[in-house]
Amino acid sequence: MAFISPMAAKATRAEPSARGNARGLLSREEVYGRIRRRSEELCEPLEIEDYGVQPIVDASPPKWHLAHTTWFFETFLLVPFRKGYRPFHPSFEYLFNSYYNGVGEPFPRPSRGNLSRPTLAEVLAYRRHVDVAMAPLLVAEDVEVQARLELGLNHEQQHQELLVTDFKVTLGSNPLKPAYRERNGETLRTALPLAFRHFDGGLTEQGMDAGGAFCFDNESPEHRVWLEPFALANRAVTNGEYQEFIEDGGYAQPALWLSEGWAWVCRQGIYAPMYWRATDDGWQEYRLDGEGAVAPHLPVTHVSFYEAEAYATWAGARLPTEAEWEHVARGASPRERSPQRGRARGASPRNSSPDSHEPSAAVLAGNFADSGRLHPAPAIPGTDGEAAPMQLFGDCWEWTSSAYRPYPGFTPLPGTLGEYNGKFMSGQQVLRGGSCATPEGHVRATYRNFFYPPDRWQFTGIRLAKDA
Amino acid sequence: MAFISPMAAKATRAEPSARGNARGLLSREEVYGRIRRRSEELCEPLEIEDYGVQPIVDASPPKWHLAHTTWFFETFLLVPFRKGYRPFHPSFEYLFNSYYNGVGEPFPRPSRGNLSRPTLAEVLAYRRHVDVAMAPLLVAEDVEVQARLELGLNHEQQHQELLVTDFKVTLGSNPLKPAYRERNGETLRTALPLAFRHFDGGLTEQGMDAGGAFCFDNESPEHRVWLEPFALANRAVTNGEYQEFIEDGGYAQPALWLSEGWAWVCRQGIYAPMYWRATDDGWQEYRLDGEGAVAPHLPVTHVSFYEAEAYATWAGARLPTEAEWEHVARGASPRERSPQRGRARGASPRNSSPDSHEPSAAVLAGNFADSGRLHPAPAIPGTDGEAAPMQLFGDCWEWTSSAYRPYPGFTPLPGTLGEYNGKFMSGQQVLRGGSCATPEGHVRATYRNFFYPPDRWQFTGIRLAKDA
Amino acid sequence: MAFISPMAAKATRAEPSARGNARGLLSREEVYGRIRRRSEELCEPLEIEDYGVQPIVDASPPKWHLAHTTWFFETFLLVPFRKGYRPFHPSFEYLFNSYYNGVGEPFPRPSRGNLSRPTLAEVLAYRRHVDVAMAPLLVAEDVEVQARLELGLNHEQQHQELLVTDFKVTLGSNPLKPAYRERNGETLRTALPLAFRHFDGGLTEQGMDAGGAFCFDNESPEHRVWLEPFALANRAVTNGEYQEFIEDGGYAQPALWLSEGWAWVCRQGIYAPMYWRATDDGWQEYRLDGEGAVAPHLPVTHVSFYEAEAYATWAGARLPTEAEWEHVARGASPRERSPQRGRARGASPRNSSPDSHEPSAAVLAGNFADSGRLHPAPAIPGTDGEAAPMQLFGDCWEWTSSAYRPYPGFTPLPGTLGEYNGKFMSGQQVLRGGSCATPEGHVRATYRNFFYPPDRWQFTGIRLAKDA
Amino acid sequence: MAFISPMAAKATRAEPSARGNARGLLSREEVYGRIRRRSEELCEPLEIEDYGVQPIVDASPPKWHLAHTTWFFETFLLVPFRKGYRPFHPSFEYLFNSYYNGVGEPFPRPSRGNLSRPTLAEVLAYRRHVDVAMAPLLVAEDVEVQARLELGLNHEQQHQELLVTDFKVTLGSNPLKPAYRERNGETLRTALPLAFRHFDGGLTEQGMDAGGAFCFDNESPEHRVWLEPFALANRAVTNGEYQEFIEDGGYAQPALWLSEGWAWVCRQGIYAPMYWRATDDGWQEYRLDGEGAVAPHLPVTHVSFYEAEAYATWAGARLPTEAEWEHVARGASPRERSPQRGRARGASPRNSSPDSHEPSAAVLAGNFADSGRLHPAPAIPGTDGEAAPMQLFGDCWEWTSSAYRPYPGFTPLPGTLGEYNGKFMSGQQVLRGGSCATPEGHVRATYRNFFYPPDRWQFTGIRLAKDA
Repeated sequence: MAFISPMAAKATRAEPSARGNARGLLSREEVYGRIRRRSEELCEPLEIEDYGVQPIVDASPPKWHLAHTTWFFETFLLVPFRKGYRPFHPSFEYLFNSYYNGVGEPFPRPSRGNLSRPTLAEVLAYRRHVDVAMAPLLVAEDVEVQARLELGLNHEQQHQELLVTDFKVTLGSNPLKPAYRERNGETLRTALPLAFRHFDGGLTEQGMDAGGAFCFDNESPEHRVWLEPFALANRAVTNGEYQEFIEDGGYAQPALWLSEGWAWVCRQGIYAPMYWRATDDGWQEYRLDGEGAVAPHLPVTHVSFYEAEAYATWAGARLPTEAEWEHVARGASPRERSPQRGRARGASPRNSSPDSHEPSAAVLAGNFADSGRLHPAPAIPGTDGEAAPMQLFGDCWEWTSSAYRPYPGFTPLPGTLGEYNGKFMSGQQVLRGGSCATPEGHVRATYRNFFYPPDRWQFTGIRLAKDA
Repeated sequence: MAFISPMAAKATRAEPSARGNARGLLSREEVYGRIRRRSEELCEPLEIEDYGVQPIVDASPPKWHLAHTTWFFETFLLVPFRKGYRPFHPSFEYLFNSYYNGVGEPFPRPSRGNLSRPTLAEVLAYRRHVDVAMAPLLVAEDVEVQARLELGLNHEQQHQELLVTDFKVTLGSNPLKPAYRERNGETLRTALPLAFRHFDGGLTEQGMDAGGAFCFDNESPEHRVWLEPFALANRAVTNGEYQEFIEDGGYAQPALWLSEGWAWVCRQGIYAPMYWRATDDGWQEYRLDGEGAVAPHLPVTHVSFYEAEAYATWAGARLPTEAEWEHVARGASPRERSPQRGRARGASPRNSSPDSHEPSAAVLAGNFADSGRLHPAPAIPGTDGEAAPMQLFGDCWEWTSSAYRPYPGFTPLPGTLGEYNGKFMSGQQVLRGGSCATPEGHVRATYRNFFYPPDRWQFTGIRLAKDA
Repeated sequence: MAFISPMAAKATRAEPSARGNARGLLSREEVYGRIRRRSEELCEPLEIEDYGVQPIVDASPPKWHLAHTTWFFETFLLVPFRKGYRPFHPSFEYLFNSYYNGVGEPFPRPSRGNLSRPTLAEVLAYRRHVDVAMAPLLVAEDVEVQARLELGLNHEQQHQELLVTDFKVTLGSNPLKPAYRERNGETLRTALPLAFRHFDGGLTEQGMDAGGAFCFDNESPEHRVWLEPFALANRAVTNGEYQEFIEDGGYAQPALWLSEGWAWVCRQGIYAPMYWRATDDGWQEYRLDGEGAVAPHLPVTHVSFYEAEAYATWAGARLPTEAEWEHVARGASPRERSPQRGRARGASPRNSSPDSHEPSAAVLAGNFADSGRLHPAPAIPGTDGEAAPMQLFGDCWEWTSSAYRPYPGFTPLPGTLGEYNGKFMSGQQVLRGGSCATPEGHVRATYRNFFYPPDRWQFTGIRLAKDA
Repeated sequence: MAFISPMAAKATRAEPSARGNARGLLSREEVYGRIRRRSEELCEPLEIEDYGVQPIVDASPPKWHLAHTTWFFETFLLVPFRKGYRPFHPSFEYLFNSYYNGVGEPFPRPSRGNLSRPTLAEVLAYRRHVDVAMAPLLVAEDVEVQARLELGLNHEQQHQELLVTDFKVTLGSNPLKPAYRERNGETLRTALPLAFRHFDGGLTEQGMDAGGAFCFDNESPEHRVWLEPFALANRAVTNGEYQEFIEDGGYAQPALWLSEGWAWVCRQGIYAPMYWRATDDGWQEYRLDGEGAVAPHLPVTHVSFYEAEAYATWAGARLPTEAEWEHVARGASPRERSPQRGRARGASPRNSSPDSHEPSAAVLAGNFADSGRLHPAPAIPGTDGEAAPMQLFGDCWEWTSSAYRPYPGFTPLPGTLGEYNGKFMSGQQVLRGGSCATPEGHVRATYRNFFYPPDRWQFTGIRLAKDA
């Protein structure tokens, strides 16, 4: 499985590793330990009762995430590669399989919230059991083992994001509106003016070949794409801007909506982003630090693809394609600052050479889960000027105009792991860039996330684009 | 509200009280304390995780039952009758209202399992808070207070039964099949032969007037009913008998079923009672002491009205009407042994006077929740012979042939409490006699339970009747 | 099948026959011919396009009714009793079976409107083919043949009523609101004052034994019922009265409704009887003579059981039980005027003997389908005074308080014909008295119709009762 | 609305017109008359009863199509451009609007089959009325009128295809399996061997600019696309090949299916293409000439996108993207033979210049509706060899791998006509090439059809592609 770069190789290159947000030299054991611990740390503010609840089918109980990520290591590493390994419990294979038909019939997803057993204590014991058993594999030189290990850790990071969004649903849909963390005062209370930067288009590259750093199979292979000239907004759409759309009757004008989107609005009675509530005191929004007035300068989040499209139409713009987005992000992504950067075909903001616009990742990236904020933050301009696309990474996943389909030459992983991505390539839209719930270092310019058009329990947002 | 006999009056009469299974003199505080404690005792074997789960819409999480029964006292006693009482939490009125529209819009029932908060600890604190606040009302002489207190305690007993059936759903639908209690060896391993006893019919009475002992409004008023001669089986149908029905293709012959029942069988793929599972080792049944082979001598339970009707048709019999059942039970009910017994119009087994068949309640009643068995037990014959109807009370609720409709002259309780029973009088069938999950002393010959024809998560069973 | 009185016997007794509205001596062939022709006459004003449509699952296309009634004679008479009879088409057994599982799997009911073939011309040819083949059986002396013939003709009359209600749905739900017949001026424009007449109750009889005149199996056997004293309204509730209920917020007060009814109102957005439409010019109602302003003096019709119950609660009354209704109707029914009248245990209006209140059927019965009006008409008082119950028969089917369950001793017809009634005895309510779409002579005091509580595409109405 | 080439212009250029399959000079009136007549001719074999039926929500009754296409001319031409025009009927605007919210709320689509009125005769009168009124507009020189006229005629041709597929559903789902036309003997009984032809890829063009010949807005603008090298099958997959997939357990292996596709298979119980039926005599297929044994040499049709993808995966291939398909078709399309051909950037089969592979349209195109066959026919090789892609046009719409999304720079038509295509750009897949039910001359290499992944009542088929 050559497309997965062995984690060890990179760690020994003593380069900053995107994974585990590590800086400096980390052993495989340390990376494994950090990532595994992180999942449990995220749950620390929860009550035992919060671990089992599943208010919407899309979400899963935290307890389930903790067990499922462990099941992944047990199923794809311990069982095939550690002789004599005895699974922790004979039923867990069935209970904590998410959707791998190759491993047998999974337990029905909508019923995950009905499983009061195993208890949290038993699930934590399961984690300990697997972690202990994994120790020898962490130092194994087997390439396949290393590749699966890296996949397993990236998989766990994905579930760390889902942990956050899923317990947000549980807490946010509870009439008591319990907070997950305390609210801190914010210093920055305004948003930058919206501006568009132009790009020339032309023949560019998209995706990433296996064999170098880690990527998921759906990002491969790297391939050429032709882009027409376009412009991209410097930041995500804000709550304040979105409120103008609402006040202008955005949710009442079918002409702004895709046909499916309009049907969704009517059938579900949608009139605002998820977690917004109209009160006598104006719009309130539930955030993980509790419910409060909608802050106009923050990026709007928890909107569906339908809402993103309708907003863009209303604003006289459109959503970017994933190729456009990536074209820009390859110039801005932190991972392109490495020596291999020369290989990158970064976007050239009009009238300037790529080199003269070396992006400063520290400025351009938004906030990730590691900040503990767990909510989008306002864009902060860097040295490149206010029109430079900011917060492409972090804050909000950005809906793109592109349906989630395979790249030319796409080949799924062999065997059961091939069910990881490929079989979901219908009916979904691509999102790019990660969010405030994404572990720092987990995403990159080529990273493809995907959700169904009506989904909005993730931290999804809107970045506008235009033909140029 | 004259129809509710004040609990205090009875307690001071030093008579055996049906409530709380008390014998001897119990003060109101003692009865209140026992019943309230009993709800929590029933939950003791549960894990915290079990308290929040709701695998089917009909069931409620144990935590919800503990809170809702407390809400009842708060809403109908503390708020109106204790000046200056401050509700424990402003949202609990909304969260723990079951269906009283007069108290405002209730929290949607199917979402009860999504409420991770309040936590169990908070709910127990709620119970403590209300119990402390109730103390003065327990000794108040106000007739309305006493009536509502008695209603509240009967209400809590009803929820004690639901607690058992509801956590049975949670545990029994979990693939791990956790047991609630240990399995004990059983000594009795056979069932009595099935026999029918004949009754003459004629003009009899049904129901109970308010003003004496406690009853629910749907049992009133007492009124005359004409019965044709009939025969009633001496015991409930057993698992072994029901297996014959299955093996004879009972679930595959539409002619045996009501039209709605047949549609239910086909649509839901029903082929056996709830909690039964076909395995290579034969039928297994989940009971609260774990999963094991179906015991042929035990009463069949967890069957729907449709199954009860189809079985009866297959067996060349029918279900009893509620009037027939009550006619017999008024001769057999423990509550008829009191001095008022002369008032009762008990059934006369053919060729014998009522007096010569004075039933021995200790023998004829089956087992109740207080035994801790929490599963139906085989019928045990008394001195009256093997044809005397046994286990009319306890073991299984018995589906009757009667739709749940108001009695002639029925008047609901005034105000919001009138929503207790009357508004459910459509689409449901009457069940009689209580079950192994019913608190002893809670039911009586006139007690009317009601569920929808497909419901089977209660301990429901089948008693056959015939025209004579 | 002794319970069905052979039609021939009655016809030759030269008595007025209720069937076919015949007066005087009609041969079996004449009765058969009249009833068969009547089905087609009812369809004459239709366009070919109207014959195939099924706008709601409960309704069937007229073409289907014409074929199904023919299928009944073919299946239950020609195939078993005419040697060598060849069915008209091999697929019709499957296509036109309504629900008799004993005859094989029926074609799915909701898809009847998808059958463009056979064409109307083919269905009419089918009718001719069967009518010709039936000729020898019409004069056969075989008792079973005669019994089934009578059942088949009563069956066809039931479908004549459904023909009317079903094409009313097609025409009335069409935005063009086509009329089935011309509107005539009405002379009577007021309703009688509402009044209640009291009845003593006591031991009465209900139902009808087989062996005499024809009845359906669900009307048998005749049996005793005890009634408490009650009062019954002299006429059906009018549109004007019902409008007061609407204007008083009847559809917005949960306390007036059964729990299931309130859920139905909310889920379906119900706010008025079926066929009513709120316009700037006030309430409009579609009738078979077209859409026009709601006429306040006419009986309200097309209301569900839930609406009937809620209205009765609002009006401080209740619906009658079917036993109460029948008790009164046995004194009022036209069929009780025959010499057998002495057998009847008619109701005695208080303080008067039955004989002195010999009802005048011509006055007390409302209008039937034969009048061609096909809409309820106002009650017209007879010589018995304005408090005498009027229009018990005809005009509107009257929802009763009684769930549709078997009578004591009920036995379904043997074989497949036993599926006619018995298997529907769950979840439905009994209605009594026939409607303006019922063929005259088809109903009687013991006749039990039954529909689900939310059904309202039949001509259903409300008669109030009270405890006395 | 410059992108629509006025029909008149082309007609006077005396060139072969794609519309109406006309050769030679046709006046606008003649083209209008032919196309309008054609809709009615297609219905001639139907019975009146067939005109009103809608067995699935996706289909519409023939009567509705006849009225809706007429409504289009009335709404978008007569009302705005003919002063004093009085609509035929005030309700038709509401009844026959398909989905244009800009024209008001449309009549609910699933209820089209419930409209017995207007009758067929009335709809035909409507057509006459509009055709007469259209006469002056047919000769008007107004550019907008001419553009809308051309759009209206192309719209009517689209509905001619739907007419065929929709009455096929009605006839084919009827248990009587009535044929629409007689079955003729077929001479050709074998299929060509499957072969792949390779293409180089590179920068190519896709789409068509407005301003020249007619196209729909979703085909615009013409834009550049980069293609990797690929290979395309010479013909569509046959029934015989598809049967191998079935026999190999294709419908039972989740690994072959998209996740949504597998859920669809399980939920709907799919096991073969639509119109196939497993019998004791093997697979039967309903075609418009009646039901008969599946012919192995014919193209498989009535498969969903899910089935097409699963088949391609099973076959070790994939579906083509729409850009790949168009790249090949621009070399093969009959419309590219015109003098403007030089403008086309046709595909270059490897090692050959475009010119040496001048495709012979007569050979390469499959059969269209005009042949009257109304079923896919086997591919017939031309002079270009058996590996040359055949039947790209006609026979079956070919599912592509591309989701239906806007082209870069896409702009919908202004006003209500902008609802024609753009608002459906989510959740659907692009299909290319037309089918045996498409009017000849209606499609072209740039034509984009679109349906939902599970849809299969159209004549949809499978063409394989591969990476090269």
